[in-house]
Amino acid sequence: MNLPEDLRRQIEAIAADSRSGALGLLKRGAEVLLELLLRGAGRETVQEAAHILMAAQPSMAPLIKLGWTIGRAAEEGLEEEDLLERTRQFLREAESAPRLIAEAAAPLLQQRRVLTLSFSSAVIEALRAGTPLEVLCAESRPLCEGVDTARALASRGIKVRLGVDALIIGRVKEVDLVVVGADAVTVRGVVNKVGTYPLAVMAQREGKPFYVLAGAEKVLPPELEGFFRIEGKPSKEVAQVEGVEVENLYFDVTPLDLITAIVTPAGIFPPEEALFAL
Amino acid sequence: MNLPEDLRRQIEAIAADSRSGALGLLKRGAEVLLELLLRGAGRETVQEAAHILMAAQPSMAPLIKLGWTIGRAAEEGLEEEDLLERTRQFLREAESAPRLIAEAAAPLLQQRRVLTLSFSSAVIEALRAGTPLEVLCAESRPLCEGVDTARALASRGIKVRLGVDALIIGRVKEVDLVVVGADAVTVRGVVNKVGTYPLAVMAQREGKPFYVLAGAEKVLPPELEGFFRIEGKPSKEVAQVEGVEVENLYFDVTPLDLITAIVTPAGIFPPEEALFAL
Repeated sequence: MNLPEDLRRQIEAIAADSRSGALGLLKRGAEVLLELLLRGAGRETVQEAAHILMAAQPSMAPLIKLGWTIGRAAEEGLEEEDLLERTRQFLREAESAPRLIAEAAAPLLQQRRVLTLSFSSAVIEALRAGTPLEVLCAESRPLCEGVDTARALASRGIKVRLGVDALIIGRVKEVDLVVVGADAVTVRGVVNKVGTYPLAVMAQREGKPFYVLAGAEKVLPPELEGFFRIEGKPSKEVAQVEGVEVENLYFDVTPLDLITAIVTPAGIFPPEEALFAL
Repeated sequence: MNLPEDLRRQIEAIAADSRSGALGLLKRGAEVLLELLLRGAGRETVQEAAHILMAAQPSMAPLIKLGWTIGRAAEEGLEEEDLLERTRQFLREAESAPRLIAEAAAPLLQQRRVLTLSFSSAVIEALRAGTPLEVLCAESRPLCEGVDTARALASRGIKVRLGVDALIIGRVKEVDLVVVGADAVTVRGVVNKVGTYPLAVMAQREGKPFYVLAGAEKVLPPELEGFFRIEGKPSKEVAQVEGVEVENLYFDVTPLDLITAIVTPAGIFPPEEALFAL
């Protein structure tokens, strides 16, 4: 059985979707694989679909990791029943990651002054589970998701200060530690909202711990690094100036040596170890 | 003769002005002193006016420097005629500073890739006078004066790339050097648009020269440091979120040890030297 046309089109729709978040796309990718398995497709068709999924959204690590995990399992000869379960398990783990990460990270945050930027479900859950003294939050241009983070924390009674990215990055010396989420963890470094790299450089200068919160679905082992790519976004979100090239990238890459530890549902790892353990 | 009421009110108007730039305020401050001298006020009245001017705008180094320079000259017993000339000279030097700085800085910029942020007349003139290969320009939140810089450079045919602050700060490794203006130079460091400090930290990490362009009117010797203060700006320029304290400061302070040199109309100085030479 070749990849049925309707499911191929579903993957193409996933590839063309520039609005949904990583978890939403992951769910839809998993649904394609599950449907394929429920229709009794053979392992080769599953491998084919998994491979196309890996290339569908080069900035979405969870989709790459799902395709790789299930494609490899199919290649290794797992039965359809086990592939079904493995796919469901991948999705379950990704969905429960923020809660488990929050539990692991909460003790690091108690009675501390914390700095973060952008929006991360794991970071917000961790800050709600911990009891930080105060959170400094960078707005995170261009889309200012940091404002949503500030709102979410304040609504839970957490003391929050918000400012432009350049201001908050300069304030690392006033906090006890920095904590951010991740869009991907690769051998090149942690991919996260643009500004994370300067923030980590400042944390190193000030001698402050820099924690990254990431589920296993974000961690791309060395052989997957080549599938991941940071894509350019519309320049008009930043500015439009005649004769000026306006660059707009949502993400930057923070070298692993600037990161104190990666907090995952499976525990707290030195950055390099996370790449091989998860 | 005590300070006449109309001139006292002019100084109060200068103090209350939150819209004019440093050079505009400097001109109006100088006019008060010139008018006072033309009316034949004694040195004590000039000293009084100079002292009030020094406190009028704690974020405007040129006004502090003018008050100090003329007040000290009056205290030292300079004749009215010489005080008039000294005041006019201060103003002339401040007005011609960007052009002279540009001449001194231009050779540093030839055929180089340059990174800057915010808006500085001296930086723009220097980039026009030099022939950089390319300029990376940070937008400089909250008011995005970097967009004006990009526009001004592009209109002169200079190749410009613009991006959000967090992106451009992370790009220091792609350029040959960083150049920024200054709002003040004090013993605590160079005061400039917020983001300058993280930019300098990144430049140090990447081993790139970091030049500050500043006229003598911006340089505050150690005894003047206490007069200078960075004032908070309206938080609504950044964001308004219920229960969240939004901080808005236009400036940060970059320690002198992160700065390669200060380019002034009088030449290029190591940072510490500029404090005593200008």
